[in-house]
Amino acid sequence: MQPLLGLDWGTTSLRGARLGERGQVLEERSFPRGILSVAPGQFAAVFESLFGDWMTADSLCLISGMAGSQQGWLQAPYCACPAGFAELTTKLAWIAPGRIAIVPGLSIEVDGVPDVMRGEETQVFGALKLLALDSARLVLPGTHSKWVSVQNGRITQFSSSMTGEVYALLRQHSILARSMVEPESDRNNGPAFERGVHQALTGKGLLHTAFSARTLALFERIDQAALPSYLSGLVIGEEIKMQGLSAGDALVLIGAPLLCALYKTALQLVGVSVTQVGNQATWAGLHALAQTLQTQAAKNK
Amino acid sequence: MQPLLGLDWGTTSLRGARLGERGQVLEERSFPRGILSVAPGQFAAVFESLFGDWMTADSLCLISGMAGSQQGWLQAPYCACPAGFAELTTKLAWIAPGRIAIVPGLSIEVDGVPDVMRGEETQVFGALKLLALDSARLVLPGTHSKWVSVQNGRITQFSSSMTGEVYALLRQHSILARSMVEPESDRNNGPAFERGVHQALTGKGLLHTAFSARTLALFERIDQAALPSYLSGLVIGEEIKMQGLSAGDALVLIGAPLLCALYKTALQLVGVSVTQVGNQATWAGLHALAQTLQTQAAKNK
Repeated sequence: MQPLLGLDWGTTSLRGARLGERGQVLEERSFPRGILSVAPGQFAAVFESLFGDWMTADSLCLISGMAGSQQGWLQAPYCACPAGFAELTTKLAWIAPGRIAIVPGLSIEVDGVPDVMRGEETQVFGALKLLALDSARLVLPGTHSKWVSVQNGRITQFSSSMTGEVYALLRQHSILARSMVEPESDRNNGPAFERGVHQALTGKGLLHTAFSARTLALFERIDQAALPSYLSGLVIGEEIKMQGLSAGDALVLIGAPLLCALYKTALQLVGVSVTQVGNQATWAGLHALAQTLQTQAAKNK
Repeated sequence: MQPLLGLDWGTTSLRGARLGERGQVLEERSFPRGILSVAPGQFAAVFESLFGDWMTADSLCLISGMAGSQQGWLQAPYCACPAGFAELTTKLAWIAPGRIAIVPGLSIEVDGVPDVMRGEETQVFGALKLLALDSARLVLPGTHSKWVSVQNGRITQFSSSMTGEVYALLRQHSILARSMVEPESDRNNGPAFERGVHQALTGKGLLHTAFSARTLALFERIDQAALPSYLSGLVIGEEIKMQGLSAGDALVLIGAPLLCALYKTALQLVGVSVTQVGNQATWAGLHALAQTLQTQAAKNK
């Protein structure tokens, strides 16, 4: 196999890894150089300066994430679901043929409304490889969380939830922010978090339950320092409530450890069992794509 | 009856009216002098400078709204529900005995979580007087909308919804703001608003449906200028969905005409009939409270 360089080029950060034959990480770098920090036309120069030394004459570089968006290096049109490795590899957006390519995001349409992802598709396929699964339900928590269904190796359904963004809006800009002590306290108050999840699961909806963060503070029925955790529980609980899960369901959870720990706690409250995969899912996904490319190339010879 | 001056002293604005024997408005003034603009200790001076000329030797001034909050003129402790005129009048917070009083807000506790209102209780009782009703379900749209149930002249249940605030957060601070043209376009695109309401009523929940404002713009499936109306429909539709209404239900809608028109449209989409009352509800409520005071005083003589 060609020497492989994987890049996860998102909105606010850029991570890269040199990957070995079996997909193992040989070396990793990360930079605060998300696409929002790169001027149009400067992507090639930024890539060369940060990763140029890793590219040998026969290297392959695969890039996932927002680098393929309109504001990125090269627009990689969305690939419509259902989609698996075959669809992704045929729709790669090649910057330098055979050398550097961007993985397309996925789109889906449900009842006339489109939904999209960019980067998460690579994590999903990577996690499935790592877990040796070809069907699963997965959740990727974040600013815009994604809930994904995979059947026989292809993503058949997915749905976004603006959970992380709505948490930040309520935490920083709403009337609730006035009750929350600075500096930004963390979201690790377990009992307050679980209380928020419970409130969300049994309540009318977030527009109503969010107000309880204010009234509980007003009546001194919750410790001020615990409010961010309570609010976090409300928002994550609301996201989980929307999914129509049942006790006994199993989910694969992909993401950073701290955020995944919150989701795991909340999901366990509804009786859902969780298998966790970290951010290495991206590298596994890019490695698997490179393998698929190689197999296709061998067939075409 | 004593000459009556009514004040609606909110967070950002201050309105006052001289009211006649039958509650009719003789003269009205409004100022951008909400409680947030008044320094602690300065409320009496602001009142005197703006309304002092209306106070005669035997005048009564009743004030509703956030002037009774911790940051206001004088804290008027919440009155617990169920509550009617009798409870409100006995819990008035007197600034100058027999002359100037603040109407208490209401509190309620549902499943261990408090909810509160300040000012809306006066509008509710005013609207019921104007409509000659003593039982009704009412909605007061706004930054923090209130849904209120009244039975036999007493508020028995109410619930807040952070609809207006969440709309503003999503409109101004979220990723959706990037797709919305400046200057702030209005919320009067009827078809886009109704499309948003429909999406909210049939969708999984606001955390998911709000993302559709982004994807519809991304795929140019909605006119950019119509996005604020669509988002408004999503948020108001979500609020309505939480209430468990049925076709054939009847509601009293209290508030400013433009906002009420949006709610009326949305409520009609779920088959709910609406009776509308404007902001004169406050004056009617304060007048009715003054009458109750007078009756009580006469009894006590």
